Amino acid sequence: MESAVLSRIGLAGLAVMGQNLALNVADKGFPISVYNRTPSKVDETVQRAAAEGGLPLTGHHSPRDFVLSLSRPRSVVILVKAGAPVDQTIATLSEFLEPGDAIVDGGNEWYENTERRMRETAARGILYLGMGVSGGEEGARNGPSLMPGGSLKAYQNIQDILSKVAAQVDDGPCVTYIGEGGSGNFVKMVHNGIEYGDMQLISEAYDVLKTVGGLSNQELADIFAEWNRGELESFLIEITADIFKVRDEHSEGELVDKILDKTGMKGTGKWTVQQAAELSIAAPTIAASLDGRYLSGLKDERENAASILDQAGLETPTLRSVDKKRLIDDVRQALYASKICSYAQGMNLIRAKSAEKGWNLNLGELARIWKGGCIIRARFLDRIKQAYERNLGLPNLIVDPEFAREMVQRQGAWRRVVGLAIESGISTPGMCASLSYFDTYRRARLPANLVQAQRDLFGAHTYERIDRPGSFHTEWTKLARQSKAGAFN
Amino acid sequence: MESAVLSRIGLAGLAVMGQNLALNVADKGFPISVYNRTPSKVDETVQRAAAEGGLPLTGHHSPRDFVLSLSRPRSVVILVKAGAPVDQTIATLSEFLEPGDAIVDGGNEWYENTERRMRETAARGILYLGMGVSGGEEGARNGPSLMPGGSLKAYQNIQDILSKVAAQVDDGPCVTYIGEGGSGNFVKMVHNGIEYGDMQLISEAYDVLKTVGGLSNQELADIFAEWNRGELESFLIEITADIFKVRDEHSEGELVDKILDKTGMKGTGKWTVQQAAELSIAAPTIAASLDGRYLSGLKDERENAASILDQAGLETPTLRSVDKKRLIDDVRQALYASKICSYAQGMNLIRAKSAEKGWNLNLGELARIWKGGCIIRARFLDRIKQAYERNLGLPNLIVDPEFAREMVQRQGAWRRVVGLAIESGISTPGMCASLSYFDTYRRARLPANLVQAQRDLFGAHTYERIDRPGSFHTEWTKLARQSKAGAFN
Repeated sequence: MESAVLSRIGLAGLAVMGQNLALNVADKGFPISVYNRTPSKVDETVQRAAAEGGLPLTGHHSPRDFVLSLSRPRSVVILVKAGAPVDQTIATLSEFLEPGDAIVDGGNEWYENTERRMRETAARGILYLGMGVSGGEEGARNGPSLMPGGSLKAYQNIQDILSKVAAQVDDGPCVTYIGEGGSGNFVKMVHNGIEYGDMQLISEAYDVLKTVGGLSNQELADIFAEWNRGELESFLIEITADIFKVRDEHSEGELVDKILDKTGMKGTGKWTVQQAAELSIAAPTIAASLDGRYLSGLKDERENAASILDQAGLETPTLRSVDKKRLIDDVRQALYASKICSYAQGMNLIRAKSAEKGWNLNLGELARIWKGGCIIRARFLDRIKQAYERNLGLPNLIVDPEFAREMVQRQGAWRRVVGLAIESGISTPGMCASLSYFDTYRRARLPANLVQAQRDLFGAHTYERIDRPGSFHTEWTKLARQSKAGAFN
Repeated sequence: MESAVLSRIGLAGLAVMGQNLALNVADKGFPISVYNRTPSKVDETVQRAAAEGGLPLTGHHSPRDFVLSLSRPRSVVILVKAGAPVDQTIATLSEFLEPGDAIVDGGNEWYENTERRMRETAARGILYLGMGVSGGEEGARNGPSLMPGGSLKAYQNIQDILSKVAAQVDDGPCVTYIGEGGSGNFVKMVHNGIEYGDMQLISEAYDVLKTVGGLSNQELADIFAEWNRGELESFLIEITADIFKVRDEHSEGELVDKILDKTGMKGTGKWTVQQAAELSIAAPTIAASLDGRYLSGLKDERENAASILDQAGLETPTLRSVDKKRLIDDVRQALYASKICSYAQGMNLIRAKSAEKGWNLNLGELARIWKGGCIIRARFLDRIKQAYERNLGLPNLIVDPEFAREMVQRQGAWRRVVGLAIESGISTPGMCASLSYFDTYRRARLPANLVQAQRDLFGAHTYERIDRPGSFHTEWTKLARQSKAGAFN
């Protein structure tokens, strides 16, 4: 399996994602070597490359042959399960790598693991990139969104390849050098958190339209297809329209109704929520989507709860009869406004981390590379890009003049939908969280003064005043007892 | 400062909490030695003990004298800032401690730090307790709620002291041996998370009553005092009533209106939210309270947002004229129902951790020791205790028959309050989160089927079916394209 001509790049880890990304690279004309611990995966990939018209891909069964088949400085992309398998793969390959060579981890890795490996490989002169790859299997083959962070040199060595391999949009390829350290992984993590939020919000829109509005799957398919021609145009809306169309092969009706309502997950949504808490960033919509997955998993408990509350006399709130057309239009607006808040949360999380780590990340450029290839790709991301181009220091998407105007236009519909859902007993935790976020963030005066008074009363934590500088402590209980003696009236 | 008679117990770290706890111990008749790195704090404590009628308390300026003044096996409580200061204090004292002696950390420590120190001290034969202490300065002096976890032997050595020092309620002292390892710290952490939730919910009730209902501070004081005579009876409701009564010394009106609406915080609320995410437990009400604090901190941004949205044409939703009496009654019920959901989240978090760590924690007993002394003390905790006594394996407080009945009775009022707030543009993120939690948890069928379909479409994550076992994958896009050709109709 030795090849006379050296390959420009190598890829180790040939599950479907890895195979597809390797074929994508080869398809763009870059000779690539591939390796996998299980040799059959190597052969499978070689066969696929041959079947696709003889793409320039060579397979290797030994890590040594694999590494030595690459032109120097070598670049090896690894696409294996995050965590220990990455360390093992690095250990296997490092034996044969030389100073100046680079490892590019394309998995959903925790950013601190990447930073640790960066230090470890640097000690041997090996460069390291942690590269987020979004777009699923299909994106890997036809153009993903790539988020490489770490060694700039390692990025530059393969910049020409990544630029061709990535999805292409009107303003360039969906790849950019993200920043130093684990920034590529961190940005991909938040991307996934935003993806969780989008999926949760779409499922809530579906629930309201189906349960309150009484829409059939066909109507839902049509509505989502229609929405995909407007401001909500995006991959997730498009595939949702498709999903409603698929018939069940085992019974009457559509497959979506036969799917168990228990949602799986990987770790990135959880990390996003934990990092938001760590960095003092409110990300309630993303958190609601994570909770939605957790609660969906408690299917038996939920069935039990439904039955116990029924026995306790819970009357399902009567569904108000609604104007279907108006409801559909309202839900579209509620979904869009909720989505803006969710993206605002994700973007602010990235900015907070960037400030903490000194990564100097460019939020507008991140929005740009998400416009194509990835799961959250959407027309609306171009608007986010523009918002940050208008104002690099924009504190929140909500206060960009254009988004502010859109929020204003949609708030009525948004409040109607959430209010209707609450009245109907249909939970819309994501939309509620977004609306609460909006109503909290836009409020000059919150009731937090009471919380500060409580904290000062029981913990002497002190408080500030609105009318004079300084830090104050009050003997609340003593004064309240005194005032009892007639301070009022 | 040497004393001829050895003390039963020692306390190091004489900030106000430490001083008060030491005086409390001495007041119960247990001779106590105290120590602080800054000698003036020692003298201050000795003077306070003398002023309070000659309590049996001896001060020591050297750690050696301090430790040697204790009867063996020695028990030393340390009350210093969590983190590095605890390690330093342990290092200082350990020099003079002997095998069989015990260290009791009373701070708000991260449970894993306690477990690390437990291993470190065990290597030298020293026992270790991580003991949550709640009740603030006042509780420390007059009877806190104590949550000691770790070495059972160390607990037994001072059980008689802790039982007298703790707050006393109808069914015993507010202390119990929590469990092994860092369980005492973990339980205190969740206690604090629940406290965050309670404070957030109360501030929302205040906001709705004040902003929508137009209640004056005097009316609020009266309402909260009245609520404190019913099902909401609790320390936080009681002090809230007091807060509204306190006049401002600098101007007309009440002090609460002059307090800046920016809330401070320590780490425990954040840890609670992060642990909930880690353990797959939905804790949206507690998370909303953390976000509430974060967003309250962005005062300048909020003022800016209010102004920008105003310029963008945001019309503050018109406040509906409401029946004040009805609103007050509704808000009371909404607050109570929201609180049940928040406690359900906290309890389930404790149970999940207990299962992970094999701590075998007794949830009913935890509710019991929170009935007095601590910040969340409330009549309602006795009902929680009873719920777990009725059913040790209760999956969620909501499905306890008594709480289920209460939720059913209150859901109408709850939906009216949250709906009114949403309509009025007043954010009630905690109440919304609780209601969403309730409506999600009690729902046998959620729209998570759509999320699973999406995940299967773009990531081949597979799905289960409601009508047959197994794991399935579908070529959604292909089938949708086919069905376009006329599967509908």
